[in-house]
Amino acid sequence: MPLLAILCLLLLCGRPDHHMVFCGVGQLGDVLPRKAVSYNDDTVMLFRVDGVWNYSSMLLREDLGLLLLGAREVVYAVDVRNISHKMAEVWWSTTQAEQTNCMDKGKTSIDCWNYIRVLHVLQDGRMYVCGTNAYRPTCDYMVYEGGQLSLLNTKEDGKGKCPFDPYQSYTSLVVDGALYAAAAINFLGSDSALLRNSSFPLRTDIKDLCAVISEPRFISMEEVPESQGSTVGDDDKVYLFFNEVAVEYDFYSKLTVSRVARVCKGDMGGQWILQKKWTSFLKARLDCPVLQPSLPFLLQDVFLWRDSDWRKSVFYAVFTSQSGSADLSAVCAYNVEDVSQIFSTGSFKTPVSVESYYTKWILYSRELPVPRPGACIDDAARQQGIRSSLDLPDKVLQFVQTRALMDPAAQPLSGGPLLVKRGALVTRITVVSVAALDGQNYTVMFIGTDNGFVEKAVNYNGETFIIEEIQLFSQPVPIEVLRLSVTTGYLYAGSSYGAAQVPLSACSRYRSCIDCVLARDPYCAWDVNEGSCTTLAPSQSLQTGNLIQSLKNADASQCPNPEDVVPETVTFTEGSSVKLPCQPSSNLAELHWLRDNQLLNTSGRSYDHEGSLVILKASAATAGRYECQSVESAKGRKYTTTMAVYELLLDRVDQIVALALKVVAPSLAALLTALLGWNLHHGHLHLPHCRHT
Amino acid sequence: MPLLAILCLLLLCGRPDHHMVFCGVGQLGDVLPRKAVSYNDDTVMLFRVDGVWNYSSMLLREDLGLLLLGAREVVYAVDVRNISHKMAEVWWSTTQAEQTNCMDKGKTSIDCWNYIRVLHVLQDGRMYVCGTNAYRPTCDYMVYEGGQLSLLNTKEDGKGKCPFDPYQSYTSLVVDGALYAAAAINFLGSDSALLRNSSFPLRTDIKDLCAVISEPRFISMEEVPESQGSTVGDDDKVYLFFNEVAVEYDFYSKLTVSRVARVCKGDMGGQWILQKKWTSFLKARLDCPVLQPSLPFLLQDVFLWRDSDWRKSVFYAVFTSQSGSADLSAVCAYNVEDVSQIFSTGSFKTPVSVESYYTKWILYSRELPVPRPGACIDDAARQQGIRSSLDLPDKVLQFVQTRALMDPAAQPLSGGPLLVKRGALVTRITVVSVAALDGQNYTVMFIGTDNGFVEKAVNYNGETFIIEEIQLFSQPVPIEVLRLSVTTGYLYAGSSYGAAQVPLSACSRYRSCIDCVLARDPYCAWDVNEGSCTTLAPSQSLQTGNLIQSLKNADASQCPNPEDVVPETVTFTEGSSVKLPCQPSSNLAELHWLRDNQLLNTSGRSYDHEGSLVILKASAATAGRYECQSVESAKGRKYTTTMAVYELLLDRVDQIVALALKVVAPSLAALLTALLGWNLHHGHLHLPHCRHT
Repeated sequence: MPLLAILCLLLLCGRPDHHMVFCGVGQLGDVLPRKAVSYNDDTVMLFRVDGVWNYSSMLLREDLGLLLLGAREVVYAVDVRNISHKMAEVWWSTTQAEQTNCMDKGKTSIDCWNYIRVLHVLQDGRMYVCGTNAYRPTCDYMVYEGGQLSLLNTKEDGKGKCPFDPYQSYTSLVVDGALYAAAAINFLGSDSALLRNSSFPLRTDIKDLCAVISEPRFISMEEVPESQGSTVGDDDKVYLFFNEVAVEYDFYSKLTVSRVARVCKGDMGGQWILQKKWTSFLKARLDCPVLQPSLPFLLQDVFLWRDSDWRKSVFYAVFTSQSGSADLSAVCAYNVEDVSQIFSTGSFKTPVSVESYYTKWILYSRELPVPRPGACIDDAARQQGIRSSLDLPDKVLQFVQTRALMDPAAQPLSGGPLLVKRGALVTRITVVSVAALDGQNYTVMFIGTDNGFVEKAVNYNGETFIIEEIQLFSQPVPIEVLRLSVTTGYLYAGSSYGAAQVPLSACSRYRSCIDCVLARDPYCAWDVNEGSCTTLAPSQSLQTGNLIQSLKNADASQCPNPEDVVPETVTFTEGSSVKLPCQPSSNLAELHWLRDNQLLNTSGRSYDHEGSLVILKASAATAGRYECQSVESAKGRKYTTTMAVYELLLDRVDQIVALALKVVAPSLAALLTALLGWNLHHGHLHLPHCRHT
Repeated sequence: MPLLAILCLLLLCGRPDHHMVFCGVGQLGDVLPRKAVSYNDDTVMLFRVDGVWNYSSMLLREDLGLLLLGAREVVYAVDVRNISHKMAEVWWSTTQAEQTNCMDKGKTSIDCWNYIRVLHVLQDGRMYVCGTNAYRPTCDYMVYEGGQLSLLNTKEDGKGKCPFDPYQSYTSLVVDGALYAAAAINFLGSDSALLRNSSFPLRTDIKDLCAVISEPRFISMEEVPESQGSTVGDDDKVYLFFNEVAVEYDFYSKLTVSRVARVCKGDMGGQWILQKKWTSFLKARLDCPVLQPSLPFLLQDVFLWRDSDWRKSVFYAVFTSQSGSADLSAVCAYNVEDVSQIFSTGSFKTPVSVESYYTKWILYSRELPVPRPGACIDDAARQQGIRSSLDLPDKVLQFVQTRALMDPAAQPLSGGPLLVKRGALVTRITVVSVAALDGQNYTVMFIGTDNGFVEKAVNYNGETFIIEEIQLFSQPVPIEVLRLSVTTGYLYAGSSYGAAQVPLSACSRYRSCIDCVLARDPYCAWDVNEGSCTTLAPSQSLQTGNLIQSLKNADASQCPNPEDVVPETVTFTEGSSVKLPCQPSSNLAELHWLRDNQLLNTSGRSYDHEGSLVILKASAATAGRYECQSVESAKGRKYTTTMAVYELLLDRVDQIVALALKVVAPSLAALLTALLGWNLHHGHLHLPHCRHT
């Protein structure tokens, strides 16, 4: 499997000094986070209200200094710099009648609450809120004025904007005042569509089963300003990511694949054919090839990292294994222009009927109608008198009506995943670009997992490095939403249990220069003058004199020698046991115990127990100097940090007293006996029965 | 995923008392072997000769008391009751010229030896041996006479009987003096076929790419006497198992599936069409559905468990996950009659050309030619004057020439796997039926792994139980061949490293009645009179009076109370540490420590370390009675066995001496002082400097 071998060499095999050529099951995705931060670390802040659950929608209003949290039956506004500080709240409860009606239709009482699932900001600064509202999705406008959060009570039908089912997949986006939503559009959840709610409402066709969307799970939506700098007068696009059952394959069971689709912002539907339907909905497979052969990994979340030039923007996507037997997740990144090209220049797949009972999907090889089906209205079309999609010729609309599927599939940058992770499955991703001391920008990924953790990872020249793993919640709940604010420097996460806030970096956590440099955190550098690990200010990249950072090379050899560790004296008594505690500086480090500067063989009478050295039955020979070293390898170099030094002393007082007693008592007894004997012999003392009378 | 849930409930979830409804990745296939037997156990016997490798073919000659081992450049005859006892050997070395010639063609020196890969016994008692012979496969006859093994030197061309490449997949079978072989038939290994080497040689067609065999990996071959008791005058069949690239699916990458194929023993090829080719080669997919969705698991080995009625015979097959990310293996069993039915009554798949460039495989729905294509010549055909396949009409032969693939796929008995195992992948399986004390027969599976182990497993009412795991080789080498002899009661395994022999049962390994009964080994029962775990003699099933066995229920409640464990006295000194060793009775048992009949909380000053209880800084309060209990759960009941009892005593002598010294020494000193003072006072003694002169 050459692909496997290459992937392994490039990306996967944990520590770079291993130089492994073959990567077995054991190694794949076994990249350890260098540090583990617990949820009760003082950098992790929590917001939750007793009895309130499902903090699953989130809106960042840096302009108001607020983070809005949509939970079950309530919206909270919390301080964006300290989310545990609640600023305002507004309740939107289902009525008893609504709940009864919902339960009468066969839903459980827990599903018949109002789950706030949509929170958007509008151009005028008002907010748009939708909730499932006991299986009757409803939307409203919300304002924050005078420290109060209030709903305007202009209740609008939320069908096609918000799902009925609080647990059903869903995504939405506001572009130029129009709400784009991909959701189930009926009570049963059986019909799904991509809709635009605006003065020109549009939707995908649900009737043609094979052409548009089949049993989808909607993931995310992003706007890309493709009109910017377009030489052909192209339109802006809205991209939709989802998983669906593939219609184009003939497999021995149902096959689910990941998709990227896009529509043109200026689409107005067709005049007669595709009336009020998308004329520009095209989709393609989205590949994240991890281990071959395998079923395609399935998309869980997408984050659009925006460059000022949309062509250089990147979709970061997280995937998990489709097969229940593998607990693998992966991150793949896609160049936006590459994806756009598939739709503007790729081939169309087309169904062909075989013996009137079967369908075969093949590449459409004949001449395409003009303008190109699914293309946005561009200058060339306008020159032909086609000013909007309403003017498109019938043959173009007929073509695209049954042929939404494009070829080839979207492939990740560098051909493979940026990260493969074994263990807890990933749910969400958000990405930020950080300027480092070397003047370069590095992409830091924050990846949420299904057990309440966030992993902070960077890819250095194809090598993925997990800087830290932060436990955000005391419960193993999936991270349902992740937001990042460069302004405040915080990451926000929502789950069914609550919302959490954590700084994008906490450099002071690194105590030594080696620890700070090996952290390879683009935010952090070691300040030689201050003797501390400091957060780089955005403009600090040029003042490199007193700062040490080594992101790609993980080279801590410039670090000044650390101060000597003060030995701790431990006295012990003969035959007792001694336990010497020690913690490694990171998860990537190994502990070595030295005794009188010799590597200790921990077997027989001494062994490791949870990082501590345990010595059973200490004897006089046990005494000596014990040093605990944390040895961390990075890029072929080894860095040794002394974590603790113990001077073991046999308890002398105890020893001398015991020895003295053992020697002195017989001597005393002998002396006493001799003196008594002498006295008796000389008759100074008489034994009672032989007293002379 | 209801299938998953059902599989879990039925088969997979470890201990039966868990009653789990959902089975996550963690649980799937995590069935622990109850006992682990090491390779240096005295029941494991080894045969290997220094410098000789690849003991990968094996022929059991119980009639001669021999086991024949085909290795690299040599065949050994060893004692079937003690394989470490070599009886004879015959070398068949490649010449220098052959090796040079082989290396000149670009092969490595290691591949240019003579690997003995075929060992068959013929009807006249002679043996037929083939070797790769430096990429020029050659066969010869071999006899064992007068304690000597010798080759007859009638060197025959081995092409089509033995592979060129020592590592290429291959299988063969001798039926009625004809050698059926499935192998690569050219030097490059690119062309493969199923061939019959006999007076009527036949082979599969390699020209028609889509119809017959595509990039196969051959697994095994079995003869089934389907003419026995046939009311329609059917022929015997030869079944072939292999993996191949599926041509019938349209998947986004190459898809490999497992297949079962069969030919009729009486096939003589066609007269003009399919001349010297099989007219009866039909194949179908072989499914072993483990976790859905997933890529099909791939076949590794098949064992035909033969019933006297062939219809009740069962194919036992082992599979491994196709995806490199999952280390899962599974055992599926197929009823022979069910498989036979697919070929005799199933539908044909047929390729249809789509737009002259694509192919779609659909079910052939029109009327079939007569006689049924691919069917053996039966009474109905003979009545039509068709006495052999040479008489078959052209339309029948033309039909089967491009339509070897049948539908539906072969499904396992009970719908799912008998066993799913995580960890080391399985390579081989052999099965034996054992009569137990309850008069029923149980199927015991011996499963070889890719790291040199054999697992002995039984399926009781859908619950798979691994009785023991036996390490056969000191090296983690794949088991390449497994043979079982009911006559000798031994299992034989071959690997690149050597051959191993192990008894089918070793009941004496179970020391207590509970251990013996919970072993659930159909071979073993506890003899109450003898007080030992004994091997059941074949006729013993009726003498149940003094024997206890409980296979399905694992009920050891009938066991007599074990004798009390004699406590071991351990004395300790104050402040010292104490280590009390204990081993659980099985891998399924937990250790509990009791102190003075109270469950001990192993935390703080005492903790577990590799089964031992370690007490740090023992004090007078530490003294007491410590009991180590092994608690094993089976079918909702818990069985407690006391493994060790320790009486901890503070070392009284040491204690008294120390106490005495501490009390006595001052008393002695006081007495001595008093006596001295009294003497001085009375002038019996004079201090030196004030002596009266």
